[in-house]
Amino acid sequence: MARPISFLSDYGAADDFVGVCHGVMATLAPDARIIDLTHGIPRHDVRAGALVLRRALPFMPPGVHLAVVDPDVGGDRLPVALRTADEDRILVGPDNGLLMLAARRFDGAVEAVDLSRSAVRLEPTSATFHGRDIFAPAAAALARGAQLAEVGEPIDPDALIELDMPLARPEDGELVARAVTVDHFGNVALDVEHEELAAFGLRLGRPLLVNGASCFYATTFADVAVGALLVYQDAYRTLALAINRGSVAEQLGLAVDDEVRLRPAP
Amino acid sequence: MARPISFLSDYGAADDFVGVCHGVMATLAPDARIIDLTHGIPRHDVRAGALVLRRALPFMPPGVHLAVVDPDVGGDRLPVALRTADEDRILVGPDNGLLMLAARRFDGAVEAVDLSRSAVRLEPTSATFHGRDIFAPAAAALARGAQLAEVGEPIDPDALIELDMPLARPEDGELVARAVTVDHFGNVALDVEHEELAAFGLRLGRPLLVNGASCFYATTFADVAVGALLVYQDAYRTLALAINRGSVAEQLGLAVDDEVRLRPAP
Amino acid sequence: MARPISFLSDYGAADDFVGVCHGVMATLAPDARIIDLTHGIPRHDVRAGALVLRRALPFMPPGVHLAVVDPDVGGDRLPVALRTADEDRILVGPDNGLLMLAARRFDGAVEAVDLSRSAVRLEPTSATFHGRDIFAPAAAALARGAQLAEVGEPIDPDALIELDMPLARPEDGELVARAVTVDHFGNVALDVEHEELAAFGLRLGRPLLVNGASCFYATTFADVAVGALLVYQDAYRTLALAINRGSVAEQLGLAVDDEVRLRPAP
Repeated sequence: MARPISFLSDYGAADDFVGVCHGVMATLAPDARIIDLTHGIPRHDVRAGALVLRRALPFMPPGVHLAVVDPDVGGDRLPVALRTADEDRILVGPDNGLLMLAARRFDGAVEAVDLSRSAVRLEPTSATFHGRDIFAPAAAALARGAQLAEVGEPIDPDALIELDMPLARPEDGELVARAVTVDHFGNVALDVEHEELAAFGLRLGRPLLVNGASCFYATTFADVAVGALLVYQDAYRTLALAINRGSVAEQLGLAVDDEVRLRPAP
Repeated sequence: MARPISFLSDYGAADDFVGVCHGVMATLAPDARIIDLTHGIPRHDVRAGALVLRRALPFMPPGVHLAVVDPDVGGDRLPVALRTADEDRILVGPDNGLLMLAARRFDGAVEAVDLSRSAVRLEPTSATFHGRDIFAPAAAALARGAQLAEVGEPIDPDALIELDMPLARPEDGELVARAVTVDHFGNVALDVEHEELAAFGLRLGRPLLVNGASCFYATTFADVAVGALLVYQDAYRTLALAINRGSVAEQLGLAVDDEVRLRPAP
Repeated sequence: MARPISFLSDYGAADDFVGVCHGVMATLAPDARIIDLTHGIPRHDVRAGALVLRRALPFMPPGVHLAVVDPDVGGDRLPVALRTADEDRILVGPDNGLLMLAARRFDGAVEAVDLSRSAVRLEPTSATFHGRDIFAPAAAALARGAQLAEVGEPIDPDALIELDMPLARPEDGELVARAVTVDHFGNVALDVEHEELAAFGLRLGRPLLVNGASCFYATTFADVAVGALLVYQDAYRTLALAINRGSVAEQLGLAVDDEVRLRPAP
């Protein structure tokens, strides 16, 4: 039985990109289950893809994890596959920072290969659709049990690219955070750990100010009135902003990378 | 072999909510087929979710039917699983009215459990993502053959919440209906049964007025000219409005809950 | 083991159309893999569906290929299934031009049947949702090994409808092409073959003018500066326009069917 393949990308749902990659994998590994993690990563947003892959990967069954957010496709970034220290997970995608945040959750990469001239790639190999021609065939071969060295040329796993992530900082007695993702419900995740808040006097069950607006540090949406603003520890244990039954992104006009200033209510 | 799992939600396609639930179910029930019924229910719209689940469930293979439209997640609504009288279908989701319209199609619920402290839930259980932490693990266990009592605490199935649905009414010789769903093609389903129309002199093959606009009671779109308005019995046998090759929702400015007045053409 | 089923439509992701067809197929062919090729074809755009099906079908495992873009559903177009000369692929959908461009890639149709009164259709058969009631049941039966003659009435495969496709033309020393598809990244595919370009003095690695704007004939996006315009042979070997890390459709205001004029830079 083949290992399952999870698949994340910025390909969207409007086109046949995702379906064609599924077709290639289904042809080469007919009994591999494919789990669409999401294809809604904002286009070309490597950091957003890396953050989603990092938080979601522990919920995927161990196997092959294909991820494609690849603005430099056909350029000089390497197409790679890597194996994690823990759980023997295989990550496949461009070496542009997309993979390593997630790999760190499994104690990093212990083996990696360059797929540029992979023996299993489709010919002719296009310059612009490596998802189809390089990554999907490699993922399928690996799901069927191929070793990394059978699908690419060994490279140093310590040389794989890692992203710098924004970090919240103190300023004038406020905690200055940034919006790192905005979801379908308009909830906004911040680059803040629960532990950082206590140092600023921000505590569960207490009011605070968010960009000057009155807010409450709650456990879940229904802890505040409909339409009211809350901060909460989200399902991935990072701090987030929401409005009960509303969209905080719309109401406060927040987008990814915007600053969010938190302070205790006076 | 595991039973198939159908999955409906308001999670949308932009984020990893759906994919993460798939991952959890694929981990716990590797051979269960998962059928995405839709994840495009308007966010927090329990009634729309209930209506879609009711009409679509008969076309799903009998098995486990996971449904999550859950604005009060983490609040005092119960997470539940129920078993239907007919066909032994298992419905899993919040007890907020989402499930019972569909369960009625299978002669109602004969057994139900509260999943709040389910033995199979993921730990730590988040307050805001019960789809991942409570519902998906329960659905997977049930698909593999677990009994309801193995995944939750028995509750009275007659106490499960049911929605009040709008009903069309007569007024000044008109039939006053409401738009209950608007689909991707801009077709608008109404809360009217075919039988109610005859009492108002509205008959197949005859002209009528819809909010004052000329319309024709047809069998299918192509029965009227391109751009013309029709009413028809839709594929779920409820009355609907459409424009041949157009969007009636856009052209008449109709949204869910809007009134639609029908009368015979003079 | 059932043959795989690929599935393309204009049903979109907002509604339950796709999920209900999956449910019908999973009920009738429980072990058939279903691959969603895409459901993002612009609604009612038969030509766009035909073009995507043509280019994507070679990447799908041979099996049953369900395609539904069907503005005349319930009208006088025939619901059909056909078998291709090469690879014994079965295409199922409306006979409105959607299928034959793709069938030509496999040397055309050698057998076809009318599914109007198919023995496997769902009863009652709606007039407006043949995807659910006629096409999905036929696809499932064919995936399980039914012969065409078991699911419909034989018709002449040479009478199946073929689309006229636009062709680029010369005019005043320019090559006048048309936009045939616009993808999620804003890349625009043209109705031009690589070979036609040489006759106009347009060569790889050279500058050109596109609707008067400076452009470069490149191999991939990263060959030009961020924000710069390029033409390239896309992954399906047709000519396309793009902006590195941008949307050429937005920037040049291009939509499907718009003219695109190409000439060498002076």
